[in-house]
Amino acid sequence: MARPLIQSKDNPDITKERRAGTFDVREMACFLYGGEDKLQRRAEILSFVKSTPALHDPIPVEFMTREQRIENAARKIVAMTDNLEQIDASDFFGEGMYYQSLIMGRDLHPLSLHFVMFIPTIQGQTDDEQMDEWLSVAVARGIIGTYAQTELGHGTNLKNLETTAVYDPETEEFVINSPTITSAKWWPGALGKSSNYAIVVAQLYTKGVCRGPHPFIVQLRDLETHMPLKGIRVGDIGPKFGFNSSDNGFLLFDNYRIPRQNMLMRYSKVLPDGTFVAPKHSKLGYGAMVFVRSIMIKDQATQLAAAACIAVRYSAIRRQGEIEPGSGEVQILDYQTQQFRIFPQLARAFAFMFAAYEIRDLYMKVTEQLTHGNVDLLPEIHALSSGLKSVVSWEAAQGIEQCRLSCGGHGYSLASAFPEIYAYSVGGCTYEGENIVMLLQVARFLMKAVEEVRGGNARLADICGYLAKPHRAHSSFRSWDMYTDQDIVQDFEHVARKQAFRAFDILKKHQSETSAEEGWNRTSIELCKASRMHVRLYLVRNFLEKVALAPTASLRAPLTDLTRLYASDLIISSQGEFMKSGYMSETQIEGIRSGLYHSLAKLRPNAVLLVDSWDFDDVELHSVLGRRDGNVYPALLEWAQKSQLNKTEVLPTFEKYLGPMMKEGRSKL
Amino acid sequence: MARPLIQSKDNPDITKERRAGTFDVREMACFLYGGEDKLQRRAEILSFVKSTPALHDPIPVEFMTREQRIENAARKIVAMTDNLEQIDASDFFGEGMYYQSLIMGRDLHPLSLHFVMFIPTIQGQTDDEQMDEWLSVAVARGIIGTYAQTELGHGTNLKNLETTAVYDPETEEFVINSPTITSAKWWPGALGKSSNYAIVVAQLYTKGVCRGPHPFIVQLRDLETHMPLKGIRVGDIGPKFGFNSSDNGFLLFDNYRIPRQNMLMRYSKVLPDGTFVAPKHSKLGYGAMVFVRSIMIKDQATQLAAAACIAVRYSAIRRQGEIEPGSGEVQILDYQTQQFRIFPQLARAFAFMFAAYEIRDLYMKVTEQLTHGNVDLLPEIHALSSGLKSVVSWEAAQGIEQCRLSCGGHGYSLASAFPEIYAYSVGGCTYEGENIVMLLQVARFLMKAVEEVRGGNARLADICGYLAKPHRAHSSFRSWDMYTDQDIVQDFEHVARKQAFRAFDILKKHQSETSAEEGWNRTSIELCKASRMHVRLYLVRNFLEKVALAPTASLRAPLTDLTRLYASDLIISSQGEFMKSGYMSETQIEGIRSGLYHSLAKLRPNAVLLVDSWDFDDVELHSVLGRRDGNVYPALLEWAQKSQLNKTEVLPTFEKYLGPMMKEGRSKL
Repeated sequence: MARPLIQSKDNPDITKERRAGTFDVREMACFLYGGEDKLQRRAEILSFVKSTPALHDPIPVEFMTREQRIENAARKIVAMTDNLEQIDASDFFGEGMYYQSLIMGRDLHPLSLHFVMFIPTIQGQTDDEQMDEWLSVAVARGIIGTYAQTELGHGTNLKNLETTAVYDPETEEFVINSPTITSAKWWPGALGKSSNYAIVVAQLYTKGVCRGPHPFIVQLRDLETHMPLKGIRVGDIGPKFGFNSSDNGFLLFDNYRIPRQNMLMRYSKVLPDGTFVAPKHSKLGYGAMVFVRSIMIKDQATQLAAAACIAVRYSAIRRQGEIEPGSGEVQILDYQTQQFRIFPQLARAFAFMFAAYEIRDLYMKVTEQLTHGNVDLLPEIHALSSGLKSVVSWEAAQGIEQCRLSCGGHGYSLASAFPEIYAYSVGGCTYEGENIVMLLQVARFLMKAVEEVRGGNARLADICGYLAKPHRAHSSFRSWDMYTDQDIVQDFEHVARKQAFRAFDILKKHQSETSAEEGWNRTSIELCKASRMHVRLYLVRNFLEKVALAPTASLRAPLTDLTRLYASDLIISSQGEFMKSGYMSETQIEGIRSGLYHSLAKLRPNAVLLVDSWDFDDVELHSVLGRRDGNVYPALLEWAQKSQLNKTEVLPTFEKYLGPMMKEGRSKL
Repeated sequence: MARPLIQSKDNPDITKERRAGTFDVREMACFLYGGEDKLQRRAEILSFVKSTPALHDPIPVEFMTREQRIENAARKIVAMTDNLEQIDASDFFGEGMYYQSLIMGRDLHPLSLHFVMFIPTIQGQTDDEQMDEWLSVAVARGIIGTYAQTELGHGTNLKNLETTAVYDPETEEFVINSPTITSAKWWPGALGKSSNYAIVVAQLYTKGVCRGPHPFIVQLRDLETHMPLKGIRVGDIGPKFGFNSSDNGFLLFDNYRIPRQNMLMRYSKVLPDGTFVAPKHSKLGYGAMVFVRSIMIKDQATQLAAAACIAVRYSAIRRQGEIEPGSGEVQILDYQTQQFRIFPQLARAFAFMFAAYEIRDLYMKVTEQLTHGNVDLLPEIHALSSGLKSVVSWEAAQGIEQCRLSCGGHGYSLASAFPEIYAYSVGGCTYEGENIVMLLQVARFLMKAVEEVRGGNARLADICGYLAKPHRAHSSFRSWDMYTDQDIVQDFEHVARKQAFRAFDILKKHQSETSAEEGWNRTSIELCKASRMHVRLYLVRNFLEKVALAPTASLRAPLTDLTRLYASDLIISSQGEFMKSGYMSETQIEGIRSGLYHSLAKLRPNAVLLVDSWDFDDVELHSVLGRRDGNVYPALLEWAQKSQLNKTEVLPTFEKYLGPMMKEGRSKL
């Protein structure tokens, strides 16, 4: 943010907004990103990227073919990792993500899985000898690895993977095989064309007995020619909704042999004679998943904030229709319906970002406790992070679409960046654990907690403490102005607790009528709802707690408006839950509804400054509609010139098809 | 549907489903499409398209570049219109849409606007002489026209269009000019590269006075060379979320002159000396808009049904996880959460399709009444069609995404067709009247109706009759089994009426405190809600009425399950509205919620047959996941082979970037 936010040639409408806000943008950005030093590092990284042509796109990616995108991503990722000394690579959550997003945009690249899965798996699952063999070559980028687990016919249920690794003691090799089409490895990033190695998860067989899924390190392509090795069939799985610079791939094995030493043996082992040695310790793999989720949540928050930024800035310069006849067209940001589409998304983006920080902090706390052998917090935090991943990815995707739709026709153009943001973000609903599966995992945890509370022997950590609190008959809401943080938390605690117990009772009833499993299935919609409410309570409480820490009143004021909007929007959109058993009266609900409208109006003058606070450079935002300077229309016209179709005035279609058709048509008259 | 639905090499899971259903698919298809003759015509059209290579894609469009898509669309549209005698072109709602969708897929083409806007505008807005000059050449495809109204900076508010047409009596010409960048015509389909003519809407000036926006017919490109004429700047606006076979365009005029005769003069006229003659009759343009909306609603219903079809068929063959341990992986369609994601979308598809038929019938009724000078029904039906367009397009898009997400990772691949269906369908939220603007139009009408009811002088047609019905204190719901059609309609009438009156009261209060316009703005969220409830009531009632007409009990049974699911899902998702003032007790709400779960379970065995009833051929569905035969996995592998990236085993990226990087990395060790 060294560059000034207000410049002389900016659209006057957006300058007017920036002058009218009530707080200091840089102060807010400091609060959001955790201090002046963090902002300074962002500026340095941005400046490096901007001044390094090898990290730039020759034309915007949306004008490239898939082949061009793939090539461009490969070129950039080499340049990006050539320059890793520019960032503190140990801080991926902060500097790493920012650096990568400035260069790669909203997409993966040929080394995504290499860094995120291949190297960490080597670090976590190899014995010392294997670590020596593989880690340094991987870190030196001497090979490119990916992680191949999911199969064409098998996703979340690892137990049923079909790829086999049969040990042959005669040659001391594993024979990796894909016995069916459904056993084809499918989806791994960079598997199709870029990687020459993969961690492959396969069913281990020794002495004729299946020992369950285990990881193997497998060479896929020749190091010199990059041709697939004999017995390997590998390729790209084709175009997708998003991530089209990534060669997600498929992989089939035809009795492909690898040395015994290529099974990752930190935990299970296979001895030369084929003896299987089961692991002594269970794998404490939860921690890493929690960290990946904190990254995902931050990413989703950032994408949602980017969408809100584009929508708010465009709505500040777009004028359409008149509210008062004769007074000229108004900025569309003045319409209540427009505010209602966009502002709740902005509030969510803040809430999600603060949640991402909190999960990262919890992860660090847990990691430290683990070194002392304390695993008390782990299940609760793992459940929370699974639930957050699910709720945040879905609400972010929904929110992004609302922002896009609020920009009318221009939101539909790739110039807006919205279609790309949406496709990128909504992928998060599916990868890293399908959302509904995640919510049901959270519910397993919640139902156990409820059972403990009912049994009077609950040992609940802070996050679930509300389950053991006494029932409240009525909301404390008196008036919007007096609706305190504590009142809000109590109200969300009430409905979350109520739904958790309700789901528990329905579950027990169904289970007594059928079986444990079928009873669970018949309660699953109610269980998902309980999980969602658990997560929303967490989001609301954490948002309020974080905002209370804002250093100045001038920051706290608009942030408090955002918390009120966030809470009231959630309450009104599921008002029935709050009205049950007369917990909230209709008068209270109406008070909250008026409060929601009041929050929209209060946020209106600060809307542009609030999105400015996210410190998005135009390079990162990559949106013609969301430009800092608000000069959208000339930029749209300039962008359109780059269309592939505008390279010539007349396309070949005229001579080939449309010209002859018209000529014939005219000749008949 | 001459082809058998069950064939010997089909996936046994899908055959099992088809054998287990309780009704006859062909009977259901007849009911849905309006008779055996309609199905027969579908089969004939399908057979013609399948047997005509000129109408096929050389490779699936998802593997084409934008340039290839454009060329392919031009080639196909010429072939398609060369063979128009294959269909009854007067029945666009039925045969025309089907024929076009089989050939063009989910996209526009170079003649879309020519047929839908250019020719109808000539028919509706020219005087006799102009009609002679333009209509036959347009119909003969001697020229390609489009309709250029929207500008870069101006959408729904026509009054503020900036393009000018200044009459010059000396040369008897209009001078068309684009005075600003924001006045560039922007978005018209086929404007960029295909069209050589356009209807251009511009502010007419005669004798120095602005006469408001008027339509002009303007030649854009040379008939022989297709080069843009001097004074015309025209091109493609670039890639979009969907519709990428269409060259939506921009257009700028630099004092471009056209003859006086090129202003469309059926209504307003400009005489040679520049005298402006205002129209005698106001334009009764509503009727055409109602027809276009009936087309849109049918199209949205079809896309939603296609999405549900893909999701249901895939969920029938996908096995994952175990409900009862040891009993093998189950079809994911057995999970309650999966049913809850998909079945309500299927119910919506039926409800929307029946609504589309009804709107078309109402359109025909209105058109007939208009010939007798009776315009009573028009405002009500126009409002209804605007509201339906808005609710249907949004709920269809949302439903399509739910179907996509229910298919996990494979739903994210273009092989599933979901991304294309979504991008195509969600466009309908914006074009033909932005959804929120539409809902506010409906609200204008509703508020007028409420005012009349309050004033005791309501003359409401059937659709709004509920507004004048007496208030009911409580729902008649006693038990799910006894929840009659009439009870359901009463419940939806109650909440719609209540919200309409509530919005009216809030509006009056705000208007008394501020101004008529600002009061309207401050009430606009509540007004939109009233409009949505008005439309939902209509959808529910029409769905129930149509299902009651099903000819046999075996058809009525599953259709009734769909109506119950549709109604209960709507009630539960806005339960607070039904609980207000104790209209529904919590016991009643819980009864409806159990009914919802009960409906899911009842629909489960008929799910595949219900989607089969839509008579989608694999050509129309264009989805690897949704194949009739259920043999999804081999087909996915085959589809992936076609990826642009799989043309060679090793991409140029290896030699250029990744290979040298790895070599260097290894050399350092």
